[in-house]
Amino acid sequence: MGLALQHGVAIGAHPSLPDLQGFGRRTMQVTEDEVYQMTLYQAGAVRAFADAAGGRLHHLKAHGALYNMAVKDAALSRGLVSAVKALGDEVQIYVLAGSIMETLAREAGLVVRCEVFADRRYMPDGTLAPRQRPDALITDEAESVAQVLRMVGEGSLVAIDGTVVKVQADTVCIHGDKPTAVPFVQALRRALAGASVQVLPA
Amino acid sequence: MGLALQHGVAIGAHPSLPDLQGFGRRTMQVTEDEVYQMTLYQAGAVRAFADAAGGRLHHLKAHGALYNMAVKDAALSRGLVSAVKALGDEVQIYVLAGSIMETLAREAGLVVRCEVFADRRYMPDGTLAPRQRPDALITDEAESVAQVLRMVGEGSLVAIDGTVVKVQADTVCIHGDKPTAVPFVQALRRALAGASVQVLPA
Amino acid sequence: MGLALQHGVAIGAHPSLPDLQGFGRRTMQVTEDEVYQMTLYQAGAVRAFADAAGGRLHHLKAHGALYNMAVKDAALSRGLVSAVKALGDEVQIYVLAGSIMETLAREAGLVVRCEVFADRRYMPDGTLAPRQRPDALITDEAESVAQVLRMVGEGSLVAIDGTVVKVQADTVCIHGDKPTAVPFVQALRRALAGASVQVLPA
Amino acid sequence: MGLALQHGVAIGAHPSLPDLQGFGRRTMQVTEDEVYQMTLYQAGAVRAFADAAGGRLHHLKAHGALYNMAVKDAALSRGLVSAVKALGDEVQIYVLAGSIMETLAREAGLVVRCEVFADRRYMPDGTLAPRQRPDALITDEAESVAQVLRMVGEGSLVAIDGTVVKVQADTVCIHGDKPTAVPFVQALRRALAGASVQVLPA
Repeated sequence: MGLALQHGVAIGAHPSLPDLQGFGRRTMQVTEDEVYQMTLYQAGAVRAFADAAGGRLHHLKAHGALYNMAVKDAALSRGLVSAVKALGDEVQIYVLAGSIMETLAREAGLVVRCEVFADRRYMPDGTLAPRQRPDALITDEAESVAQVLRMVGEGSLVAIDGTVVKVQADTVCIHGDKPTAVPFVQALRRALAGASVQVLPA
Repeated sequence: MGLALQHGVAIGAHPSLPDLQGFGRRTMQVTEDEVYQMTLYQAGAVRAFADAAGGRLHHLKAHGALYNMAVKDAALSRGLVSAVKALGDEVQIYVLAGSIMETLAREAGLVVRCEVFADRRYMPDGTLAPRQRPDALITDEAESVAQVLRMVGEGSLVAIDGTVVKVQADTVCIHGDKPTAVPFVQALRRALAGASVQVLPA
Repeated sequence: MGLALQHGVAIGAHPSLPDLQGFGRRTMQVTEDEVYQMTLYQAGAVRAFADAAGGRLHHLKAHGALYNMAVKDAALSRGLVSAVKALGDEVQIYVLAGSIMETLAREAGLVVRCEVFADRRYMPDGTLAPRQRPDALITDEAESVAQVLRMVGEGSLVAIDGTVVKVQADTVCIHGDKPTAVPFVQALRRALAGASVQVLPA
Repeated sequence: MGLALQHGVAIGAHPSLPDLQGFGRRTMQVTEDEVYQMTLYQAGAVRAFADAAGGRLHHLKAHGALYNMAVKDAALSRGLVSAVKALGDEVQIYVLAGSIMETLAREAGLVVRCEVFADRRYMPDGTLAPRQRPDALITDEAESVAQVLRMVGEGSLVAIDGTVVKVQADTVCIHGDKPTAVPFVQALRRALAGASVQVLPA
């Protein structure tokens, strides 16, 4: 954590469903109140460590199935939004651009950052193509970079069926557990610099 | 929690070893740093709920085996004390009166409250008689009340071998999961009032 | 366990989803293979205790959401059935009468017992009325007893919309954690005896 | 598991304390009965998988802190031994050669295999040098091989203080999670073959 602060990394909480075996990636039947409580518990704990290190809890983004369920379910989004609200006005929420989660977060007066995905393809309604689909992931670096450049530069993306979808891109999600993560980030930064897009701290 | 605040109850965190099956009552081999982390994690989570309810985290008291191990182990006490310190100056720590935990908490500049036990007998060194002993628990209400009155009024207790031990009594621990808890508290308050001892909010 | 054997109680395994917080009562997205593994793991453990006590694992019935999901999902039923098959021919499976679980268990050659519920109302397709419905539970003892008598005696039940549904009743599920469980069982046995129905060991 | 059977690997259970965070490597205060139950539960589950794959549960060896605690504690060894006994006569127990665990396992009539460690140094009483000691581990391959050859060939080892300790070596423990595990096993087999020691299936 000391290292993170030293390098100016913004510390976020990434709360999950209580599914250790499934790494939080399996949907579970949870209520709005359960989402509120699991989010507040986990993020409250992370905040204590951020504070202890002399930093602060900068943002919150739901993990795995909790995120995917909430972007399509108003009640679960409300549970998440209420928890972030309870954490205080300075904590940002990262939402899927265009989702019910974004709408409810804005209505609640949260600081909202719209997240886009570099390596995922999109449905015509702006949601992510489910991982079960063979074309869910973009595996070509150049295509990923091009998708981000378009989302950031033109505010739009091309869905899997060719539909052009408007999108707001405040922050880009890159999965850090892939071996290609670091070279990809380097390529993306070069491409953004080449397009005169400035990357700012969150 | 709303109800707790309404009645002026002080909200405390009661962090435990990660031993769900044993309800945190079995000793485990943990390091100072592990104690720091488990305490900060759990108390940070509780604080988020207290804050969300419009209250605040008032105090912290280690649970079960974590408490019993730490009162006799400087390293574990340091882990606990560091976690409370990281939670901020307004959080009190409840310690076993006269223990290394009290010493280290005071040295760290924490707000310290010395805790005494109504229904436990004491060793000549001021620690609790281990639960394994047949005489560890005081089961007679009058004897429990008398022990508290003496600790509060005279600042001393009589250990199992008759030794008189000096003790500071800022707060009295009463286990709320016994069916006799409420009548005992009522009897204790009557006795304290009869002795002109005023019970103040924590 | 010794006590159970002494009284001739048949020992069953009641495996659950890995959802400790939700007591296994929340649906989770699990695969056929995950169901196979969680069932075999839990039932294998129970069998070791039954064997150690000089008894044997007599039957298996999935718990909570695992049961409710599997009775409507062929893949999950297959996972369950494969696990029971792996446990050996002597282990019976308890299934919801008329469900896909019954069909697949019979096809696999298992010893199948059709289970009926004393205190639950049924849908016209023979599945249980979901607990969310206000009329899901039968709270009147006489009505529960009458439903069992009809299921056992006539092989049919009356669904919530009045439809008469054929049903095979080999074993009756009674939730033991309700305070009325014992008096209800006594009333049911009296009624069954009155109707000259003999209750046999499983 | 299919692969294991295909290659003639003997399947063993390796039960652990309920300490997921600590990978079972931290001592915990457990009773004889708790050891019996946790061992029977975990090994019963493993046996179900071995049986399902057409194999059988061949042996049991306690993991981590459970092993280290039990080799020095008669009550915990009894809990372990009782669990193996309950699993049936065909299941072998792997014990630390010369420990109370060996004595009690033999008294209970179990099939006992004495285990020696290739990469650990020993105390004069035949127990393992605690991992806290800087000289606990043998990191030199040649020294490890030489220790095994001596234990197998001469039935003795040289403890950290030079004491020669008699030891029975039926099976050699090699930690499979070290990157050097496979080359070490190859070197050890070559050395054993060179010394005309035949390695037999367990």
